[in-house]
Amino acid sequence: MQSGFATKRVIIGSDGFKKVVDIASPNKIGLPNGHIDSTLLADVSPGGSFEVNGAVYHVLTCDMFDYVMYYLKRRTQIVYPKEGAYILMRLDVSPGKRVGEAGTGSGAFTVCLSRAVGPEGRVYTYEQREEFHKLAEKNIRGFSEFDNVVMRNKSITEGIEERDLDAFFLDVREPWEVMAEVRKALKPAGHLGILVPTANQVSETMSSLNQNGFYISEVVEIMMRKYKLVPERLRPEDLMIGHTGYLIFARKLGE
Amino acid sequence: MQSGFATKRVIIGSDGFKKVVDIASPNKIGLPNGHIDSTLLADVSPGGSFEVNGAVYHVLTCDMFDYVMYYLKRRTQIVYPKEGAYILMRLDVSPGKRVGEAGTGSGAFTVCLSRAVGPEGRVYTYEQREEFHKLAEKNIRGFSEFDNVVMRNKSITEGIEERDLDAFFLDVREPWEVMAEVRKALKPAGHLGILVPTANQVSETMSSLNQNGFYISEVVEIMMRKYKLVPERLRPEDLMIGHTGYLIFARKLGE
Amino acid sequence: MQSGFATKRVIIGSDGFKKVVDIASPNKIGLPNGHIDSTLLADVSPGGSFEVNGAVYHVLTCDMFDYVMYYLKRRTQIVYPKEGAYILMRLDVSPGKRVGEAGTGSGAFTVCLSRAVGPEGRVYTYEQREEFHKLAEKNIRGFSEFDNVVMRNKSITEGIEERDLDAFFLDVREPWEVMAEVRKALKPAGHLGILVPTANQVSETMSSLNQNGFYISEVVEIMMRKYKLVPERLRPEDLMIGHTGYLIFARKLGE
Amino acid sequence: MQSGFATKRVIIGSDGFKKVVDIASPNKIGLPNGHIDSTLLADVSPGGSFEVNGAVYHVLTCDMFDYVMYYLKRRTQIVYPKEGAYILMRLDVSPGKRVGEAGTGSGAFTVCLSRAVGPEGRVYTYEQREEFHKLAEKNIRGFSEFDNVVMRNKSITEGIEERDLDAFFLDVREPWEVMAEVRKALKPAGHLGILVPTANQVSETMSSLNQNGFYISEVVEIMMRKYKLVPERLRPEDLMIGHTGYLIFARKLGE
Repeated sequence: MQSGFATKRVIIGSDGFKKVVDIASPNKIGLPNGHIDSTLLADVSPGGSFEVNGAVYHVLTCDMFDYVMYYLKRRTQIVYPKEGAYILMRLDVSPGKRVGEAGTGSGAFTVCLSRAVGPEGRVYTYEQREEFHKLAEKNIRGFSEFDNVVMRNKSITEGIEERDLDAFFLDVREPWEVMAEVRKALKPAGHLGILVPTANQVSETMSSLNQNGFYISEVVEIMMRKYKLVPERLRPEDLMIGHTGYLIFARKLGE
Repeated sequence: MQSGFATKRVIIGSDGFKKVVDIASPNKIGLPNGHIDSTLLADVSPGGSFEVNGAVYHVLTCDMFDYVMYYLKRRTQIVYPKEGAYILMRLDVSPGKRVGEAGTGSGAFTVCLSRAVGPEGRVYTYEQREEFHKLAEKNIRGFSEFDNVVMRNKSITEGIEERDLDAFFLDVREPWEVMAEVRKALKPAGHLGILVPTANQVSETMSSLNQNGFYISEVVEIMMRKYKLVPERLRPEDLMIGHTGYLIFARKLGE
Repeated sequence: MQSGFATKRVIIGSDGFKKVVDIASPNKIGLPNGHIDSTLLADVSPGGSFEVNGAVYHVLTCDMFDYVMYYLKRRTQIVYPKEGAYILMRLDVSPGKRVGEAGTGSGAFTVCLSRAVGPEGRVYTYEQREEFHKLAEKNIRGFSEFDNVVMRNKSITEGIEERDLDAFFLDVREPWEVMAEVRKALKPAGHLGILVPTANQVSETMSSLNQNGFYISEVVEIMMRKYKLVPERLRPEDLMIGHTGYLIFARKLGE
Repeated sequence: MQSGFATKRVIIGSDGFKKVVDIASPNKIGLPNGHIDSTLLADVSPGGSFEVNGAVYHVLTCDMFDYVMYYLKRRTQIVYPKEGAYILMRLDVSPGKRVGEAGTGSGAFTVCLSRAVGPEGRVYTYEQREEFHKLAEKNIRGFSEFDNVVMRNKSITEGIEERDLDAFFLDVREPWEVMAEVRKALKPAGHLGILVPTANQVSETMSSLNQNGFYISEVVEIMMRKYKLVPERLRPEDLMIGHTGYLIFARKLGE
């Protein structure tokens, strides 16, 4: 199975220019000071460079971070790599595991899950709205490196079909409405991760977890502070992301 | 291959009590209000509970986070999960990749790398000091889920034996001293991640990266803000980790 | 009026040793490697130093920050300088203003208010519990530089005696219970500042402000990141204060 | 002395609209859905409201925060209130004190200093560039509430004229170049505050302080996390200020 990563490249220019492009489909690629044919780009080996009107551009292979941040088509708020990476760690996702997700959204995190469970694992992802389901399907089919994602175009309020899942990730507006369903789908001591944007939702979700036989292991925010890339004048960037969401992690108690 | 996770359990008590124990070796396990035999614990199924002197304790399987934070024997500063998770993401570590690391330290991050590259991948880890090498060996052999780690008890200043590595992670005092070696070991466009504790090291490392033909993609700090687990009085914990280290990410340019 | 600052000194030693002492009352002052008589200390001019068993100590005058952080007797959570400074700015406290406060607590912030309104201003501070009122009285009488503080040992739920105050600072458990009272005490467009520790209180306080004819201008947390004092290894301290409280600022609308 | 605050008003509209205007000079004031004559605005008492094309606007008196953030003409980076408030606290600025400042910049912090030292205090502020000096003069003369600011259009590398100052605030590119001068101007145990934007400057400034007989009391960054003003969906704003500067505080040792 050929992943979409193989035919994507990152173009790096001066002043922080960065663009992810497809070298498989012939088209003109816009640059700050001109353009280049995608077919010419295919001849530049990764790490190499090309010149357009006197300006040098570097070409890199496209990684998961580049894909999610700069290429993936999105019509929803997505799970960003800074949260996504930590969620993978806290849900103990690893090769061979079976994990669930709702909602799929644009599929950004689904692709990360697919990679982390590897060829022997399975990802079951639920999305109620057909338009998001279809967009995510395109994103996932185009980039998953393993044929391990099962997509369901339905809300988990109608039930989760799987049982004994190792982990579940919830990114829905009212997690408390589906807590009992999620509990049924998880194996004993299974991992649950939840992302909500507001403090009020955190409180309500925590209460629901306590009532539904979960052990809450952590509630956390992740803040990233990026620095300007000038070694002799090292300083954080003027603006930073102040908030994406609160993360709640829990384990299923009881049988 | 049976990983050490299978025989470890997390005991959860009230007031935040948490302890990771080995149910394979018979011993008395201390609790806030008494103790329990590890052999009795083996009879409690994951998610289940037991009672000691009227207090209820829950039993969970041990995950990677629990292992690194509560069980791993350490004699060095370790890479914490909050940084470790993001490093895995930014180095694009995934099943089947070949990655390098120096130094091994206590092996906390090596185990994470081992898991992320899966059974088909390889981790090459270097540690100069024999005492750390041996401690790490015990930690890694006991917990790696895949037989995919090659440990070398030498400094990479003496050379890195591998070539065409997908990624390399550097956690050494003077990254600029080994930059040329690391460059040789990486494949074109390969990923490099570096962890340093001080701002002065960040500046010097960035200059060295620029001089050695790397593209610096990000310099970043990760701050985690944990909340107290009381839904009706939601508030961050009084104390938080203020600093563990600065993360620098780069890609190899040129052939 | 002689303030308590005149007879206090800060002793600075190596390894971050810092202590605020009273040179007016004769006593032995403990040091890391011995002790010194407070009367001898009175002979050291500010900025000067003394030696005890070969170790050098520096002597400084005591400022407001030193007093609040290292000397003031406290039996309550206090308003820390990082929040206190910003509250003074946001409440537009300046020489000649008349401001109210409830509760007094240990009086740490009352002393700051007293200083900021100067000799022509007035601070009216309410504290329900007699033990805190008495402790605060000692702290305030001992350190206020101006005779401008009126202390009332009563809850503002029984009413605020003043009218047309320029600003009011609320540090009570249920700000929504006293919002109407505070509104009556403020002049038109007057400033209100509120400190609460939990997110749930923030929501309830904001709703109450909206219902009581206030314009909410800002809800904010202040995080301070301190650095270790080693120029060649510049890095933040390992631990930082993760949370003291949420600050809410509002202006009175109407009339 | 009539301060400029008396003739300024803050107009508050829906969706976060906020504008500071001058009611003394007749002009048309633009609003999101129309405009209003400044002379009509003068008739609205503070706290009151007016209507334009069906939309309600509230009118408030202008405070120091509003002035610095929304009105002051700036041609330089200014000291923001979040840092300014803490600097005032750490420099122990209070009524009657004599304090120095370099450079004046746009005068934003000079006005804060003027207010804090009150009618009996003095502020001596130095600015080398004539254009900034003149702009600051206009800002300061227009808003200072007390006639207590002495402005000098010269660099302090040419010397500071004052002696025995209680405190000095340095906001210059190379603080280490003027450290000896500042030292001469301060009284024994006097307070020094320094603002620099980069980590490299922090290291160099700290070394200079150590060499020039200062005790470094604190190096710190202040991060403000603002919340959206919606009580039922409490969450931080999406973007926050990631960095304005590092603050360094010191005391003069020796005679």
